[in-house]
Amino acid sequence: MSILLDTRYTSDFIKKSEWDAMQSRVTEAHNTLHNHTGLGSDMLGWLDLPTTYDRDELDKVCTVAQKIQEDSDALIVVGIGGSYLGTRAAIELLKTNFYNSTNKTTPDIHFVGNSMSAFDLEQTMRLCQGKRISINVISKSGTTLESAMAFRMMRQFLIDEVGEEEARKRIYVTTDRTQGVLKALADKEGYETFIIPANVGGRYSVLTAVGMLPVAVAGCDIFSILKGAANAAFELQDPDIYANPCYRYAAGRHILMNKGRSVEVLVNSEPRFTQFGEWWRQLFAESEGKNGKGLFPISSIFTSELHSVGQFIQQGSPILFETAVMYKAPANDLRMTSLEGNFDKLNYLDGKSFHNINNTALISALMAHADGGTPSMLITVPAADEENLGYLFYFFEKACAISSYMLGVNPFDQPGVEGYKYNVFALLGRPGFEARLRELKRILK
Amino acid sequence: MSILLDTRYTSDFIKKSEWDAMQSRVTEAHNTLHNHTGLGSDMLGWLDLPTTYDRDELDKVCTVAQKIQEDSDALIVVGIGGSYLGTRAAIELLKTNFYNSTNKTTPDIHFVGNSMSAFDLEQTMRLCQGKRISINVISKSGTTLESAMAFRMMRQFLIDEVGEEEARKRIYVTTDRTQGVLKALADKEGYETFIIPANVGGRYSVLTAVGMLPVAVAGCDIFSILKGAANAAFELQDPDIYANPCYRYAAGRHILMNKGRSVEVLVNSEPRFTQFGEWWRQLFAESEGKNGKGLFPISSIFTSELHSVGQFIQQGSPILFETAVMYKAPANDLRMTSLEGNFDKLNYLDGKSFHNINNTALISALMAHADGGTPSMLITVPAADEENLGYLFYFFEKACAISSYMLGVNPFDQPGVEGYKYNVFALLGRPGFEARLRELKRILK
Repeated sequence: MSILLDTRYTSDFIKKSEWDAMQSRVTEAHNTLHNHTGLGSDMLGWLDLPTTYDRDELDKVCTVAQKIQEDSDALIVVGIGGSYLGTRAAIELLKTNFYNSTNKTTPDIHFVGNSMSAFDLEQTMRLCQGKRISINVISKSGTTLESAMAFRMMRQFLIDEVGEEEARKRIYVTTDRTQGVLKALADKEGYETFIIPANVGGRYSVLTAVGMLPVAVAGCDIFSILKGAANAAFELQDPDIYANPCYRYAAGRHILMNKGRSVEVLVNSEPRFTQFGEWWRQLFAESEGKNGKGLFPISSIFTSELHSVGQFIQQGSPILFETAVMYKAPANDLRMTSLEGNFDKLNYLDGKSFHNINNTALISALMAHADGGTPSMLITVPAADEENLGYLFYFFEKACAISSYMLGVNPFDQPGVEGYKYNVFALLGRPGFEARLRELKRILK
Repeated sequence: MSILLDTRYTSDFIKKSEWDAMQSRVTEAHNTLHNHTGLGSDMLGWLDLPTTYDRDELDKVCTVAQKIQEDSDALIVVGIGGSYLGTRAAIELLKTNFYNSTNKTTPDIHFVGNSMSAFDLEQTMRLCQGKRISINVISKSGTTLESAMAFRMMRQFLIDEVGEEEARKRIYVTTDRTQGVLKALADKEGYETFIIPANVGGRYSVLTAVGMLPVAVAGCDIFSILKGAANAAFELQDPDIYANPCYRYAAGRHILMNKGRSVEVLVNSEPRFTQFGEWWRQLFAESEGKNGKGLFPISSIFTSELHSVGQFIQQGSPILFETAVMYKAPANDLRMTSLEGNFDKLNYLDGKSFHNINNTALISALMAHADGGTPSMLITVPAADEENLGYLFYFFEKACAISSYMLGVNPFDQPGVEGYKYNVFALLGRPGFEARLRELKRILK
């Protein structure tokens, strides 16, 4: 197994007997998941996705990605939540968090429709002026407000630039196989379409065309990503928490939650991991945060945040635990050069690798935090490459499903996301929401 | 008063009598602060800074900023924690979060030394190759590991590009007035220096040369920022919580914390506010997170995160409250265009402003979250301009000091940040740390 879990930094917090006591609950969750007998079991398409995903669809992803690479300077990805977080995570982790700024042979990738900011949308349009662009709009229903607003504007922008006929060849729609307004529009206009499988929810969809098309356009090897995920699907099936790091992780976070920890901090030492943290946050927050339950997930880049929230982790309220992801091999590395005079007193680091110093700092922090009262689990990953990323996506998806079942909630719905939408529709005057509008006006008075 | 606090979304959670009961504690904290009788009272330089800050130093900031604008394509800011978070917040909020990508007449600004990532440092060097650069290194002691490592590398990069003589004219040092290795180096090499006042801590230093030099280079009006802060210093002195929104805010977060809320979420609806959130997080986490106390601060951009962690805020564990910052006037705006056929069913929005839709969504979310059990306070700000940003910096600095005194902790120290550094030095073999190294090796075995 290439991805390992190190629990030594929980040893002052969790006894062996406490781990043992979790086994039966993990086994139960495992059976619920694999026997499709749990809540939301019609949404388990992600479980076998890495091996069963439609190869014709994948081939089409590759063909279209190549076309976009050849005929476009920029790809505009229109989507929110699960329709962009995993995609952005993959591109930043595998390429660079400076992706659009770097000299490269692949198109820029711009993400829009993930907020209602006019400022961001206008900036993106400005950056795209005079460039050859394509649009990939991603939404199961097509009526998600943020992405629908941005798509309407970007589509018009494209038509203004190249005309209706050419625009038709530059719009790609990733949506439901048969239903929804986007599917209807694509059929009417003749846009190329990709399918979001009906049994895969947004936050579990990164390994479908949702993620794979833009990721392929950016020049990442999507077959290696899927291979890594397939390895994970194969290796992470043992119910034994001591043999299965995914289940051990799920058990550990459950134990810590029951000891009063209410926030889980996902830690990594490379800024290009930032967006992976955001993907992970949606996965766990939407899956577990219901019925008054759940660990609140946040992510943190070290050593940056050791100089901002590190003080709190070390000595603040004992409400946190950390899950650190550490890459054993560096993507790039530098070595400290010697300095005549040693004015900065750093010559003891001469010749040392930045990557090693960085990983040493991570371990140093976990040890200091454990001393200060904050436990952590450490996930080690061989390298920040496609195969390991695919593995890590699947690892957390499965850990999240197991965790949610142990918590007694449906890992695959998000009933609370509708709450604010209902208010938005009313306040914006959408037909049919008049009663709610009257109610809100009374409250706001 | 231009910045207002709206507490209506706490009305189901906080009774009038509970607010009243806070007044005596707020008054006590106010007196402690203004009479300089509290913990860390030697670090109150920030309190009168907007009006007392050395005008000669400010003039020098402007002169040097103009020189850098004229002779440089890029400014490299080397700093971590309080040495860059406020700076980056100001530039992204006042200019754009796409700052380096946009066409502009001012230099690019690159931030390095805020992590130990070789990847980031190398990417930055690559982006700077062949460009005319200047360096602003910011550190009180000069021995902070991350920024010292990056400065050593970037200084050598600059010397390799332009030679020692020219490099001397392109390195600007912001550090202590008399002490530390950076001051010594600057004196030896003849670098231009700027002063971090001894009585201003890192996280309270944005309104000194620490923040003002790079912010001026980016083309922001630093005198307006300071004017806004001076207005805040003048207006936010009334101990009455019903007259002083800064103190009311401090009181509100205290009440909510005592009701079991352990995480405060700072909310805004514009992605360019993201880095302001990070500045705010350091301010509160380092000031309050000690002696086992404090609210854990996180920040969130809506409506993006309504599609990731929104589910949790609405229906998850009742551990959160929100503090939303809403801008009344937009920086840029767009209007929804009409669409023939209305395929996306959005024609009810025709002609509506994105900014209004965005603010409506924010209010909708706060109302929905209150219904779901998560209270919030709403801070309204006229516009995202220099003067209001200066006001907001000061507003939160003062709220943080008052909050910390009510909590019974020193708002101005950060004893826990040393914990991991001690381990790092030992594991990296720094002379003098041999005993700790033996201890750590035993634990790590």
